Amino acid sequence: MSDFRFTIHDDDGAARAGVFLTPHGRVDTPAFMAVGTLATVKALDPDDLRALGAQMILGNAYHLHLRPGDDVVREMGGLHAFMAWDGPILTDSGGFQVFSLEGLRTVSEDGVEFRSHLDGSLRAFTPESVMRIERNLGADVIMQFDHVIPGQSDEATARDASERSLRWLARCADEVARWRSDTDEPRSPQALFPIVQGGIHESLRRAAARSVRDSGDWVGYGIGGLSVGEAKPDMYRILDVVDGELPRDRPRYLMGVGFPEDLVEGVRRGVDLFDCVAPTRMGRNGAAFTRDGRLNIKRSEFRVDKRPLDEDCDCAACRRFSRAYIRHLFTADEILGLRLLSLHNVHFLVRLMRDARDANRGGTIDAWSEEWLARYLSRPVTSE
Amino acid sequence: MSDFRFTIHDDDGAARAGVFLTPHGRVDTPAFMAVGTLATVKALDPDDLRALGAQMILGNAYHLHLRPGDDVVREMGGLHAFMAWDGPILTDSGGFQVFSLEGLRTVSEDGVEFRSHLDGSLRAFTPESVMRIERNLGADVIMQFDHVIPGQSDEATARDASERSLRWLARCADEVARWRSDTDEPRSPQALFPIVQGGIHESLRRAAARSVRDSGDWVGYGIGGLSVGEAKPDMYRILDVVDGELPRDRPRYLMGVGFPEDLVEGVRRGVDLFDCVAPTRMGRNGAAFTRDGRLNIKRSEFRVDKRPLDEDCDCAACRRFSRAYIRHLFTADEILGLRLLSLHNVHFLVRLMRDARDANRGGTIDAWSEEWLARYLSRPVTSE
Repeated sequence: MSDFRFTIHDDDGAARAGVFLTPHGRVDTPAFMAVGTLATVKALDPDDLRALGAQMILGNAYHLHLRPGDDVVREMGGLHAFMAWDGPILTDSGGFQVFSLEGLRTVSEDGVEFRSHLDGSLRAFTPESVMRIERNLGADVIMQFDHVIPGQSDEATARDASERSLRWLARCADEVARWRSDTDEPRSPQALFPIVQGGIHESLRRAAARSVRDSGDWVGYGIGGLSVGEAKPDMYRILDVVDGELPRDRPRYLMGVGFPEDLVEGVRRGVDLFDCVAPTRMGRNGAAFTRDGRLNIKRSEFRVDKRPLDEDCDCAACRRFSRAYIRHLFTADEILGLRLLSLHNVHFLVRLMRDARDANRGGTIDAWSEEWLARYLSRPVTSE
Repeated sequence: MSDFRFTIHDDDGAARAGVFLTPHGRVDTPAFMAVGTLATVKALDPDDLRALGAQMILGNAYHLHLRPGDDVVREMGGLHAFMAWDGPILTDSGGFQVFSLEGLRTVSEDGVEFRSHLDGSLRAFTPESVMRIERNLGADVIMQFDHVIPGQSDEATARDASERSLRWLARCADEVARWRSDTDEPRSPQALFPIVQGGIHESLRRAAARSVRDSGDWVGYGIGGLSVGEAKPDMYRILDVVDGELPRDRPRYLMGVGFPEDLVEGVRRGVDLFDCVAPTRMGRNGAAFTRDGRLNIKRSEFRVDKRPLDEDCDCAACRRFSRAYIRHLFTADEILGLRLLSLHNVHFLVRLMRDARDANRGGTIDAWSEEWLARYLSRPVTSE
């Protein structure tokens, strides 16, 4: 555990600003992690990510297992070497992906059988096999294999999945413990994060958080099963509950959540790490975050607009290019457009978390949040 | 004319190394110009181009006229400002594009009527209208509107097109002369390049080169209608003929030619500037130039290949990424793969021309060419 350290520098109510140290360097928290599903943050170069201030990124065990194969990544020296990213990396466990394969998977106590979305081949994930995949990938933080359910699931369904996730956590931890005693092949240390499940049911979330907390001395904690179809107030309410139960001195990672307003609300509720495909996926669809809300760059109103995407932004797109130019790139299906909007949107979230850290330091997180949200939500989102 | 200057530093037979000065900076020749069809070199960022040493790039009048419209580019401050490229730019005249619209265009002495490949709308290009389009785009070098024919055309067809191109050159020059007397709107000076046509017929090429040469004090000369279906020996033979007729003290631009072996052969025959979509188009298809010939990165033999694309290359792809990683990007349809191979291929040609300059300086262009071609052509091209 000594290869990881989390230090809180500033407390401001539930919110906090800190530093999460990993074997591949530091992460100033709160932080947004860009998603590199297939060992690349879509449309971006690792140099783009470094230049915009990204510190930690994410890879997907499910996708990398299928392509190029976690065995290939291992043979190439692990994910850091393979994708030329020497900063911290976190891999998810594929739980979210296999449970999204509605109709193509069967859950049992042992694990999940599923068919690949690529070729329909039959595959199986167990807590043990997923740990081996994540070991091959070699990320700094590896997530447990968990049972993910839809956001609106009833209490019985949520309890079943939450309790199964706890049993699977124990099996993940046992598998990881076996490696630690394996001295034949020294590898970079990896921190296993448990995941708190429980749907939108407060008592289940409270029980899950306590069980996870009491089951080991974890480096950090995942909060899963949110932003999967439930209403936003439900998500915020659950975050408040979980915040009260998890140890204050460890980082909390809210999985798959990444709209600007959700990041702000999450920070206020003690979340330290976020990830989401939203900035890159929306960017490839022509949507840009701005301080005044989202805009759709394809709209004809931007045809000769000389302004940058966001006049408050200093990213590599806004420093150089007009809305008119980026609109033209989208109209003409030019690849550079996909890169510029992806870059802008990731920069927007990375900078948002930097601003949140500053507000925390100044003890003004509530006032800052209110002002930020009021401006961001003040204008109607342009149609997309 | 004083805004442009061409200085030859080293002569080595027909080959020469020099500097072409333009209002937007210098171009060390011989040089390869990457093609930015729609105001972007496909899949690349202007910063990529600067970093790999590109000095001059190209835009297409036909494509930019249709999207976003040359009026939009003008309103945005011209092509340099619009695409954030402050180095020299050349625009072609659309001649090649409209004559490629087989069945969708009608040629008359006045110009060409054609249907847009985008929406079928009826359009017309005349020498005068094309000059106005290229004025709106604002490139440093603008090409005359010419009549392009297939590479295997018979002598009568080639004579007709060549003579029409000469008459259109006079109309282009008249149109440009009108702007020069228009003092109401000062703009960056633009150099009009004539284009030598004549197919693969030596007497026609000789006559065209002489007529062009005698018709004005041109800043530089385009050589058109090559690499359009004729055999390579025919192209080289015609280059020898044209080299003997054009003034030695002006740059010669061989239009649309850009395979590595053609660049080497062109340099030996007194060509100074080249352009081609090959490096980016082939890159997007997974083909990479290497010193030992082309390779197709999608092949399974590269699955765990830790070597860079080309072990002799120092581009931003080869410095950081393995063949295995780039193969994975292509297998997974990731955008970064398109960028890395485009970047590598453009870098390859830019560096090839830098090496040719060095060989010229050393007076070893023939030995260098033979050695370079022998190695490049020694291995069979991998199937694509």
